[in-house]
Amino acid sequence: MRTLTKDAPNKIGEQITLMGWVHARRDHGKLIFIDLRDRWGIVQVVFNPKNKEVLLEASRLRPEWVVKIEGVVKERPEGMQNPELPTGKIEMEAMKLEILAEAKTPPFTLDTDGHEIGEENRLKYRYLDLRRERLKRNLILRDEIISFIRSCLHEKDFIEIETPILTKSTPEGARDYVVPSRLYPGKFYALPQSPQQYKQLLMVAGVERYFQIVRCFRDEDTRGDRQPEFTQLDIEMSFTNQEEILNLIEEIFTELIKKKFPEKHITQSPFPRLSYAEAMEKHGSDKPDLRKNKDDKNELAFAFIIDFPMFEWKKDEKRWDAVHHPFTKIQNSESLNLDGDPTGFLAEQYDFVLNGYEVGGGSIREHDPTILEKVFEIMGNKKEDVREKFGHLLTAFEYGVPPHGGIAPGIDRLAMILAGEPNIREVIAFPKTGDGRDLMMDAPSELEKKQLDELHLEIKKKKK
Amino acid sequence: MRTLTKDAPNKIGEQITLMGWVHARRDHGKLIFIDLRDRWGIVQVVFNPKNKEVLLEASRLRPEWVVKIEGVVKERPEGMQNPELPTGKIEMEAMKLEILAEAKTPPFTLDTDGHEIGEENRLKYRYLDLRRERLKRNLILRDEIISFIRSCLHEKDFIEIETPILTKSTPEGARDYVVPSRLYPGKFYALPQSPQQYKQLLMVAGVERYFQIVRCFRDEDTRGDRQPEFTQLDIEMSFTNQEEILNLIEEIFTELIKKKFPEKHITQSPFPRLSYAEAMEKHGSDKPDLRKNKDDKNELAFAFIIDFPMFEWKKDEKRWDAVHHPFTKIQNSESLNLDGDPTGFLAEQYDFVLNGYEVGGGSIREHDPTILEKVFEIMGNKKEDVREKFGHLLTAFEYGVPPHGGIAPGIDRLAMILAGEPNIREVIAFPKTGDGRDLMMDAPSELEKKQLDELHLEIKKKKK
Repeated sequence: MRTLTKDAPNKIGEQITLMGWVHARRDHGKLIFIDLRDRWGIVQVVFNPKNKEVLLEASRLRPEWVVKIEGVVKERPEGMQNPELPTGKIEMEAMKLEILAEAKTPPFTLDTDGHEIGEENRLKYRYLDLRRERLKRNLILRDEIISFIRSCLHEKDFIEIETPILTKSTPEGARDYVVPSRLYPGKFYALPQSPQQYKQLLMVAGVERYFQIVRCFRDEDTRGDRQPEFTQLDIEMSFTNQEEILNLIEEIFTELIKKKFPEKHITQSPFPRLSYAEAMEKHGSDKPDLRKNKDDKNELAFAFIIDFPMFEWKKDEKRWDAVHHPFTKIQNSESLNLDGDPTGFLAEQYDFVLNGYEVGGGSIREHDPTILEKVFEIMGNKKEDVREKFGHLLTAFEYGVPPHGGIAPGIDRLAMILAGEPNIREVIAFPKTGDGRDLMMDAPSELEKKQLDELHLEIKKKKK
Repeated sequence: MRTLTKDAPNKIGEQITLMGWVHARRDHGKLIFIDLRDRWGIVQVVFNPKNKEVLLEASRLRPEWVVKIEGVVKERPEGMQNPELPTGKIEMEAMKLEILAEAKTPPFTLDTDGHEIGEENRLKYRYLDLRRERLKRNLILRDEIISFIRSCLHEKDFIEIETPILTKSTPEGARDYVVPSRLYPGKFYALPQSPQQYKQLLMVAGVERYFQIVRCFRDEDTRGDRQPEFTQLDIEMSFTNQEEILNLIEEIFTELIKKKFPEKHITQSPFPRLSYAEAMEKHGSDKPDLRKNKDDKNELAFAFIIDFPMFEWKKDEKRWDAVHHPFTKIQNSESLNLDGDPTGFLAEQYDFVLNGYEVGGGSIREHDPTILEKVFEIMGNKKEDVREKFGHLLTAFEYGVPPHGGIAPGIDRLAMILAGEPNIREVIAFPKTGDGRDLMMDAPSELEKKQLDELHLEIKKKKK
């Protein structure tokens, strides 16, 4: 149907059709030059007086109009070549022009990196903001990162399995987003904070090597660089241990950098493994930035933090809480007094750190139901509550559960660092604001009374 | 750490460690035979009186217990070989046995195809049901289908882009699932029925070739083979037409069958294209089953149905409605009187059909805002309502929109047919019942009063 701009240099002397956006227009005496842009690049198109009608039509063109242009590809005269552009040696002499769509002047410029533009405006007109080269590159990069990870894991016999988005509320830490059920008045689904329980159930199912690039949801209070929904690489394995999981992650990301980011270099291989105590003592942080030169854009300092404490004392609630989550295995639990003081209990938990960011975390899971119940007890849960909340998992563990564990690197943050961006919104196609609004779609928004009625809901009046 | 069962035949004479489930146990005089199962297959393990303690421990083993066994791989005596098993020529002589987890007797048998077992029970214990060979194969098959499609589209320069799950309610047909906002009292997000508007906005953004394997949500009344959430392959292209889109789909699925299902054959290539009128007249259906022999499990009759009517008269509502959706392009709209009677207007819409099932649908989109407003008018919408509901899309179309269109094959149904299964629940890891319940997790479920308060919600009391 048409030639892509990237293919035009191979068509010298041929008549082709280009389609795309008017990136820029320059008038030079009797000639009009158009930079025609499609996803793959830019081609210079010349309108000359040989085709008067077409030249006249071209004089109407404005930036961002969508056009279809037929013409002949020619080599540019020697002095006019632009060696910086892949298509800089050619231009197209226009013979026919069709305007497919006109365009209003965009509310902001599209040919800069956009960092100078107010973010509210960029998010409201995200479909224009995404036209800029930087964001297009970020979208492609993100897709390439994910594709690379997928093929890596498939090669190692991992199965990608989709788990439900409409699931059950199981308070594990953060607040759940919930979805009222129309068919069951007063009942709700919850959106998953992670597929934690499903992936553990898949281990009980004998899948042994599971992964998923999966959307997760947390209804947290607004904070700068957070999104209500985010994407993680969810990995779970059976018959494994911490060593095997960390080695797997190290292998995937070492290969990713080698293949897709040859300009970048990893500070230390194998990735250093610091105990939580050591990290806090030496670096004052459980996500230390181990780069040697923080001004070096291409330096990547990966690290693993291990040996986290299992429990932390919650002053306000006057109870012990799991640092990671209650399904984490306690180190050497067979030689501990689980009825005693849990201070000093370490967990088989690990964090994955890059350039001072936590980019993932995981653990070996406790699969012995009697120890699990003990953990819940230490956390101050009543037995009935545990059965109510996690009954299906504890029941599942009675039917032949393999030892298992996993890890979940966050895709948004990894893509952000690899793209050299300052925040995750730059690597998400349609992000929300820090306070959870979609400025383009205008969400969240009010429902019609009829919808609320169907859901058996009433909005509480504000107290005066 | 261990040897997988599939690798054991290459280790004759070597000492290895196997881990997995006790699939079956047979006692023969002084010997105990165990079929040890992992994800990759089964290996026969022999316990003999040479290791008395180990033999004694093995006598405790029951089906579905999880074990770690060390031993030596041996060739089976000639008469004892089982040519039907890939590991049928070898067995392992056990030297060490560790019981990793005991197991209760499963509530149903796991070594049949499971069709004979009540589905409620299968769904409640899905983590056991998934252990059966048939379901494991379905999960792998589904992943292979999706992986194949992904690499096909990546090769053709499509970008996979993730679109939001928390978005805006825009009544397009079915009912939305909604998510109350805690931060904005009385406001709600909606879960997408499809990424329809996002993918069109990505075309405005200049992505040109987008796809996504994406979860979609519809709150519909209960009906046998439906799920509240389902997965579709979402494709959208710019500067395209119906011909190019149908050819793309035909190419992907022809290649998929050739590469991944060599035992299957396609009834007719190129896939036949029937007009809606012709399909209804000749076959009495807009999803005709064109197989020559419906008893042939390996026959695949793909077809495209085209030239759908644009509008249908809704008797009850006394108004015209879009058959597909209002963003569909009307055929030859430039030569029609859009203020007149829309009977007979055809749409640039197409359905993708396989063996009597609709497995996808799509359309070329109308990108001219003035015609779009006309369509909404024909459908009986007030101008203000249209702006309110679809304003962001109409606004976007003013900034240089390329002609575009797309298609969205349903992954669940395609996987179901290719796996030879009678319903989509057989190719979904954790499906819900026909009436939207998750029997394993017990969802939907009630919230605590505190959660409702935070969401500014009250459950309406039932009227007496």
